[in-house]
Amino acid sequence: MLRVEMDRTDIPNAGPGETAATIKALATPALLLDKDRLDGNLARLSSRMARQGVVLRPHMKTAKSIDVARRVYPSGVGPITVSTLAEADYFAQHGFRDITYAVGLAPHTAERAMRLRKAGIDIKVLLDSPEQAIILGAAARAAGVAPSAFIEIDCDGHRGGLTAGDPKLIAVAAALAEAGVKLAGILTHAGESYGLSTPAGLVAAAENERALAVAAATTLRAAGHECPVVSVGSTPTAHFAEDLTGVTEMRAGVYMFFDLVMHGVGVCTTDDIAISLLATVIGTKPEKGWILVDAGWMALSRDRGTAAQRVDQGYGLVCDVAGKIYPDLIVSQASQEHGILSIRPGSAQALLDLPIGAKVRILPNHACATASQHELYNVVSAGSDAIEARWPRIRGW
Amino acid sequence: MLRVEMDRTDIPNAGPGETAATIKALATPALLLDKDRLDGNLARLSSRMARQGVVLRPHMKTAKSIDVARRVYPSGVGPITVSTLAEADYFAQHGFRDITYAVGLAPHTAERAMRLRKAGIDIKVLLDSPEQAIILGAAARAAGVAPSAFIEIDCDGHRGGLTAGDPKLIAVAAALAEAGVKLAGILTHAGESYGLSTPAGLVAAAENERALAVAAATTLRAAGHECPVVSVGSTPTAHFAEDLTGVTEMRAGVYMFFDLVMHGVGVCTTDDIAISLLATVIGTKPEKGWILVDAGWMALSRDRGTAAQRVDQGYGLVCDVAGKIYPDLIVSQASQEHGILSIRPGSAQALLDLPIGAKVRILPNHACATASQHELYNVVSAGSDAIEARWPRIRGW
Repeated sequence: MLRVEMDRTDIPNAGPGETAATIKALATPALLLDKDRLDGNLARLSSRMARQGVVLRPHMKTAKSIDVARRVYPSGVGPITVSTLAEADYFAQHGFRDITYAVGLAPHTAERAMRLRKAGIDIKVLLDSPEQAIILGAAARAAGVAPSAFIEIDCDGHRGGLTAGDPKLIAVAAALAEAGVKLAGILTHAGESYGLSTPAGLVAAAENERALAVAAATTLRAAGHECPVVSVGSTPTAHFAEDLTGVTEMRAGVYMFFDLVMHGVGVCTTDDIAISLLATVIGTKPEKGWILVDAGWMALSRDRGTAAQRVDQGYGLVCDVAGKIYPDLIVSQASQEHGILSIRPGSAQALLDLPIGAKVRILPNHACATASQHELYNVVSAGSDAIEARWPRIRGW
Repeated sequence: MLRVEMDRTDIPNAGPGETAATIKALATPALLLDKDRLDGNLARLSSRMARQGVVLRPHMKTAKSIDVARRVYPSGVGPITVSTLAEADYFAQHGFRDITYAVGLAPHTAERAMRLRKAGIDIKVLLDSPEQAIILGAAARAAGVAPSAFIEIDCDGHRGGLTAGDPKLIAVAAALAEAGVKLAGILTHAGESYGLSTPAGLVAAAENERALAVAAATTLRAAGHECPVVSVGSTPTAHFAEDLTGVTEMRAGVYMFFDLVMHGVGVCTTDDIAISLLATVIGTKPEKGWILVDAGWMALSRDRGTAAQRVDQGYGLVCDVAGKIYPDLIVSQASQEHGILSIRPGSAQALLDLPIGAKVRILPNHACATASQHELYNVVSAGSDAIEARWPRIRGW
C-alpha cells in the first residue's frame, strides 16, 4: 500500500516581508513562531516585574528581531540587553536608544561601542578588571564621549565577573573613576540556574543572585562610589524570585520563546514554547523504529541541553503539524540535514505511521540555538494554518 | 601589573569582497581559512582518487562557497554533491551543471529539483522507496522533464537507504521505471566510519561500503536495470579505501577543511585543519584556571563530536594567533558568546598568562558546524598575518 502526502502548493521559502499561504504549504525545514504564545510569555514576565517594581530589560540575544522587540515595545527606545554589537547596531538603527551590551569588553568592542555612544546611543558596557577600564577610557577619549560601564559580579561561578566579596571590586571602580568612566552599576547573571529543576532550588538561586548583587552594590556605595543600577537576571530566576529588594532591573531573553530546557528546569509548560521547527518525512525504517525527516542539526542546532536533565528530549520533541505533541516521539539522532525520529527509550508508545511527505513540528531544546540557524520566523497563531508574517532575524557580530 | 594588548587598527568585520588589513586587526569572533592547507587537502584526495581511477564528486555541504569550489574546479561545471537545494541553486547560478542532491526526496524538493532540471541543470536526486518514485514522477511530468535518481543503499545502519539485500531494491527500481525516471545508479555513505579510530577499522569500513554498493548494483543489473553509477563516500573511507573495484565515484566534503573529529578518527593531523576561529581574551580567572574569550557556541557551534573520542577536545583546541597549538589548552565550556579556556583535565601544563585583548585561534571539532555559524571566510596563508580575501558562504534551504 503506497501512501503519499503531496502538497501541490509547496513553495520554496519566501524572503522576509513576503507571505506564504499556509503552514502546510511551507517548504521545510522552516522555523515557526506562535505569536499568541510569544505574547503570553511576554505578558507573564512583564506583569511579574511590574508587580515587583523592577524594570525589565529584555535580552534580545534569543529573538534578534525588531518585530519581536516591537511586541515588547510597540514604539519604545528600550531598555534592552544585547549579546553582540551587531545586535546593538541593528536595534539602534530601529530606534532603540537604551542598550546594555552584556559581554565582557575587549579593545575592538570598546572602540565600536564608543562609536555607537558618539552616535547618541546610551550604550552601557560590561567589565570586571582594571585593564578593561583602561581600555574603555582610551576608547572613550579617542571618540570624545563619556562612557558608562557595569561591573560584572559572579554570583554562582558560572563564567565571568568578580565575586561579591572580592577586594578587586573597589579596584575596578577606582580604575573606572580614574579613566573617566561612569559606573552604571553592577550586573550579574545566575547562569547556573539552568541546571536546577525544583521550585525551592530556583527560589534559592534567585535569592542568592539578589543578595550577592545587592552586597556588591553596598560595598561599592560604602566606598563612595555611586552604584545606581543593580541588574540581575536569567529566565529561571526572573520567574522564581520572591523578593527583589535592592534590585533595580531584571534581564531575561529565552523567556520570550521558552524551550525544552526551560521546561525541564520547570519554568514553563510545553504549551508555552513559542517556536518550533517544521519538517517533512523523507523516509521510514519501521524495522528500526525510525522515521527520517529533513531536519538535522543544521535546522535544529547541535544543542543537547536536555541530555543532563531528568527527561532527555534528544534533539527535540515531535508534534503534529497543528502543534499537538506525539507522546514520547523525539528526534533521537541528527546529522547535518537528517533527523531520526523514534520513540523515547523505555516508552510503550508505538511508532506512528507517518508517510513520506507528512509534516511535523519539533519543539527545540534551546530556543537561542535553534532560532540562530534560521533567517526568519514564519509567524503563526494557535489554531490557524496561515502564515501571518515573516519576521527577519539578524546574525553575526 | 596591568597588561593590555590593544590593536588600534581593530575594525568591525568587513563584508564579502572587502579586505581587512591583518589577522591581528580583525574584529572577533571571525572565521579564518588557511588557503594553503585547503589546497593541500584538496590535492591529497584528488590525486588519491585519480590514482584509483574513481571520479571525485566533492560534497559542498561543508564549504558552501563558490570560491572554495573554484579551488577544485577553476572553471568547471562539476561534478559536485549538495545537501540542500539552496546549495544547488547557488552553484547552478555560478555555472555548475552536474549536481547530486544527496538527501532523501520529499514532495517540495522533488518539485524544486525538477524546476532546476527544467533550467538545464543535470540534477540527480536520491530516494529509497516506491512512494518517492511516484512523487518524483509526478513532479517531473508537471515540469515536463526527464529526471534521474539514485537509490540510496544503507551500508552500515547509519540512517536512510535500503540494505543491499533488501527485496525492496528491485521494487524501487521498478517504480522508477514505471514513473518514467532514469536510474542514475546507487549511492551509499559510510556514516558510521566517523565513530572509528584505527586504520584497520577504516580500511574495513571502506571495503564494506564498496562491497555492499557493488552488491546492490549487481542485483539491479541482474534484474535488467541499468545502474551506471556506483557512488560511495565519507571522508574517512575516501582516505582509507584500498580497493575501489566496481565503484565509479567518491563523495566527501569535510576533507577540504578537516577538523578535530577527523583528527580523532585518524584521517588528518592538526596541521591539516584549514579553518580556525579567531577570538579575543575578555577576562581571566586564574584562581579557577580559566581564560574567558569572546567565542561561545554561536561562533564555534554546539558540536561536541570529540566527546566520544579518545581525546575530548571540549569545544576546540586553542592555538596562538599564528596557528601554533598551545599544548592541552582547550575550550572547556561555551555559552552563547563566551568560551572558557582551560588546561585539559589530567595535564600538567600550566595556564598561560594571556592578557585582556590577546587573540587566539581555535581549531573546531566539526568544520561543517563551525563554518555554518559564519557569513564568510577570512582567507589567510601560512606564515602571513594578511587577510588575502573574504569568501562568502551561503546558508538556508
